[in-house]
Amino acid sequence: MRGLGRSARSAARELARAGTDAKNAALRAMAAEIRTRSAELIEANRADVAQAKKAGRDGAFVDRLTLDAKAVGQMAAGLEDIVALEDPVGKISDLARRPTGIEVGRMRVPLGVIGIIYESRPNVTADAAGLCLKAGNACILRGGSEALRSNQAIAACVRAGLKSAGLPETAVQVVATADRAAVGELITMTEYVDIIVPRGGKDLIERLARESKIPMIKHLDGVCHVYIDDRADPEMAVRIADNAKTQRYGTCNTLETLLVAEGIAEKFLPLIGYIYKNKNVQMRGDEATRKLVKDVKPATEKDYYTEWLAPVVSIKVVKDIDEAMAHIAKYGSQHTDAIVTADKSRADRFLREVDSSSVLVNASTRFADGYEYGLGAEIGISTDKLHARGPVGLEGLTTQKFVVLGHGEIRTS
Amino acid sequence: MRGLGRSARSAARELARAGTDAKNAALRAMAAEIRTRSAELIEANRADVAQAKKAGRDGAFVDRLTLDAKAVGQMAAGLEDIVALEDPVGKISDLARRPTGIEVGRMRVPLGVIGIIYESRPNVTADAAGLCLKAGNACILRGGSEALRSNQAIAACVRAGLKSAGLPETAVQVVATADRAAVGELITMTEYVDIIVPRGGKDLIERLARESKIPMIKHLDGVCHVYIDDRADPEMAVRIADNAKTQRYGTCNTLETLLVAEGIAEKFLPLIGYIYKNKNVQMRGDEATRKLVKDVKPATEKDYYTEWLAPVVSIKVVKDIDEAMAHIAKYGSQHTDAIVTADKSRADRFLREVDSSSVLVNASTRFADGYEYGLGAEIGISTDKLHARGPVGLEGLTTQKFVVLGHGEIRTS
Repeated sequence: MRGLGRSARSAARELARAGTDAKNAALRAMAAEIRTRSAELIEANRADVAQAKKAGRDGAFVDRLTLDAKAVGQMAAGLEDIVALEDPVGKISDLARRPTGIEVGRMRVPLGVIGIIYESRPNVTADAAGLCLKAGNACILRGGSEALRSNQAIAACVRAGLKSAGLPETAVQVVATADRAAVGELITMTEYVDIIVPRGGKDLIERLARESKIPMIKHLDGVCHVYIDDRADPEMAVRIADNAKTQRYGTCNTLETLLVAEGIAEKFLPLIGYIYKNKNVQMRGDEATRKLVKDVKPATEKDYYTEWLAPVVSIKVVKDIDEAMAHIAKYGSQHTDAIVTADKSRADRFLREVDSSSVLVNASTRFADGYEYGLGAEIGISTDKLHARGPVGLEGLTTQKFVVLGHGEIRTS
Repeated sequence: MRGLGRSARSAARELARAGTDAKNAALRAMAAEIRTRSAELIEANRADVAQAKKAGRDGAFVDRLTLDAKAVGQMAAGLEDIVALEDPVGKISDLARRPTGIEVGRMRVPLGVIGIIYESRPNVTADAAGLCLKAGNACILRGGSEALRSNQAIAACVRAGLKSAGLPETAVQVVATADRAAVGELITMTEYVDIIVPRGGKDLIERLARESKIPMIKHLDGVCHVYIDDRADPEMAVRIADNAKTQRYGTCNTLETLLVAEGIAEKFLPLIGYIYKNKNVQMRGDEATRKLVKDVKPATEKDYYTEWLAPVVSIKVVKDIDEAMAHIAKYGSQHTDAIVTADKSRADRFLREVDSSSVLVNASTRFADGYEYGLGAEIGISTDKLHARGPVGLEGLTTQKFVVLGHGEIRTS
């Protein structure tokens, strides 16, 4: 691992110098290699899938692991999409002349070396490599041991692409061992790795966060709330509460707890309850909810802390926006929370006071996503406060340094 | 300590809501209290100073500890200066409408709770409290045990100021014990503290960085370089190399190693050597330097890693900009480095490729400072890459979250 670290550090210096054209040429060449070697990739993946099935992995796991021709095509297209994204590196912003005569600005520069730790989806190998490369970073990728052959096959395409563009092949390195100790080393090599991006289940990320000596871009939970204010348009409230819960159940920006102001509960809850019931969403609510909607199980304290990732929703009737925000502060995960209201001053309070990485007014929580926000692509979502918060795109994989343009100025006081 | 943590967390929620007027009123009231109680503060400080002298502390230490009427006045004026700084909290930037109809932007919000750990200078108590407050953060301040009485007296003024503006007095809490275990708790209470800012010597900061579970804004070393390119104007080169080394010896942005292109060494080195000698700056150089300048001691490998913080300078003749940048990458501390050159393409390469928190062209390293950069004030300088890099002002004490302004939009794909 330390050998990989050293190579990555040295590749990072070359990448920091690389121009946009070279990086884009590499991305295009990687995509072309992936298309050309499609059969090879599918073959390598088939061996991984066979082994996973033999090991008794469940259907969802095998689904995530499987690469078919369509998935391979999407992987290549994903790399080509990154070509179109603006290169953040080298841009100088906020340049201003100071009274002393110097001009001071901030230049966007790569972070350096990024370690990515992920589980069974092999497409992350190409996606993450592409994003890191475009932002001028070297990366060390450590995928799940079950996807080892698939990831190595994809890595060969990535290396070929880098080589054809004259960039160091060590700019993207895929850890070739299933040895778990490799992860332990990766997250503690502070001299070689600048940031770790873990992708996977909460258990994995919690363990990594405990042991890592390197800062992480991560989120653990997405316990997302929609608060229906008593000044909400009921039709809009129903539309958003429906979409936020039922459009997809397994995503981190899915609604998990619905908070309803008591002033609108009688009008709103029977409507949304009817929809949830028809979509087979299990409801768990407090007393007030259960009085207004049939088939609602009593909610426990624990339910309100739970990220269901399933057709289950917790519901609570609250007095007003203050109780709603207090609930979110206590039970939420600082991921994504929304208010539905026609009252601008309440919307402004919610925006300002709810301490989450994404806060929405009159829109579905499902929008909290790098593509929907216009970042082009995302490496992950961060619920931490430092550096990058919310969906993290190319910019989140860079940092800014101060640059000073002088004309011989010296300091005299 | 956990009690302080809980109070700080709850105060932070109130502060996040506080308007600019209330925060400014508190800052003005703190300054007024400090002026009113000037005699009291000096009295409390006198006891600290007496104890430090009795404990055999050296003159420099006692200097840093001592508060006289002028220092008290400066502390009050510093708080009033913060009133004039723009409040970063609540500003929405980059607001853009997406094809789906939602408007996505980023809102600047406080970090939450900031822990400040510092050594003997009691004025940090007021400065840090003021900056944290203006950025909407609660803070827990832990000063040196030698300044305990002074810090408590200043804290009383700060609390009175907060109270008179209707803000929670627990927004600024000064740890009242000299017990070292308190620091250990402060840097590991991840649920109550969002960021730690250590101010002090390298030993203190290294120890804290090793033990902290909370991210830090910090720098360890300032091994700053000036590279004199062979296309430099010799007169400008001498002026900058002189100022960067001799304007102040003890600051972190002082020049420690002078790198000189061989093409200009013969012309430049005797001139700067003459100046340094006249200012009693001890020179340590490589063979090439020693051939051109008298009274230069041989430099050891270790000298090039050393932050002198004294009238000592390391000098090395290098072949060109590439060797200079390689030297900086190996021996530097990613703090502040400068090039003197009339060649724009070399200046651009230096700006882009030198991986330091401040990179300057044709200006003295001494400019790397929050005031000189126009930040108004600084809480510290960061050489880390994440979050804030370089001098850290109000903006570095905040973070950005995504805000979405919708009109009932839901996600359909």
